[in-house]
Amino acid sequence: MNVEFVNPFLSSLQNVLSMMAQVELKPGKPAMKKDDRARGDVSGLIGMVGPKTKGSFSISFEEGLAVEIMHKMLGEKPTELNEEVIDMVGEITNMVTGGAKRILGEKGFDFDMASPVVVSGHNHTIRHRSEGPKIIMPFSHPAGKAHLEICFDKL
Amino acid sequence: MNVEFVNPFLSSLQNVLSMMAQVELKPGKPAMKKDDRARGDVSGLIGMVGPKTKGSFSISFEEGLAVEIMHKMLGEKPTELNEEVIDMVGEITNMVTGGAKRILGEKGFDFDMASPVVVSGHNHTIRHRSEGPKIIMPFSHPAGKAHLEICFDKL
Repeated sequence: MNVEFVNPFLSSLQNVLSMMAQVELKPGKPAMKKDDRARGDVSGLIGMVGPKTKGSFSISFEEGLAVEIMHKMLGEKPTELNEEVIDMVGEITNMVTGGAKRILGEKGFDFDMASPVVVSGHNHTIRHRSEGPKIIMPFSHPAGKAHLEICFDKL
Repeated sequence: MNVEFVNPFLSSLQNVLSMMAQVELKPGKPAMKKDDRARGDVSGLIGMVGPKTKGSFSISFEEGLAVEIMHKMLGEKPTELNEEVIDMVGEITNMVTGGAKRILGEKGFDFDMASPVVVSGHNHTIRHRSEGPKIIMPFSHPAGKAHLEICFDKL
């Protein structure tokens, strides 16, 4: 998997959060994910299917950051990861993947998106089961961290 | 979503576990899932994309049942939800969805499968974000319970 493929997801995440919630994420350094620990308390997951490959994308938020995004978007600050926060994470997952899909489609790399699923729980784990390497990319914000994960077969 | 669509997933799950591990699951009564609680300690999730719809499927196992399946398949009994059990749940998710895809394809309902993702953690939650109803189907076994969940847009 090359940078040209990962970058659309990174820029799409930053764009979505900046536009929807005026939350600016500072990107860290991408790495290979070697373990299964989710880097957050709530994770949006989405499956992708293209003519030449398939894969999965996830984004995990620490509770503080998820709550802050909700606060910035709606003006009210939930005290926990409630249903509204979970729905918001699902919507963000959809929008980020949709943004990346558009950019990658222009480069001739097409895929379709499944419906997102949101998972939550302190200390949950996520294991992508594609055959390719698992890329993890950290983002920081004063309210907490976010981590994006991408894994594709045969790239 | 009608029974004709759900049944292939149920029979595929029973077939896969019976064939792979000689584990016979007793089906319970399907219901609509109204909350987000995962009915188990480890869940395999997979996205599906068809020309007319998209959705997500998950299967959650209680730890005791996941460990028992592993035991029956490989002869060794892990003491916890380790990496091998997680990989096995991913493989079961793939095989069950593949079996259902074949049956549904014969009926003219085609979809492609994304790569599975496996989530684990005591007290994790799963929220399918398709627009359609979320069907949950319980299965029982002396070693523990399994629950299958299916959700599709526009069926």
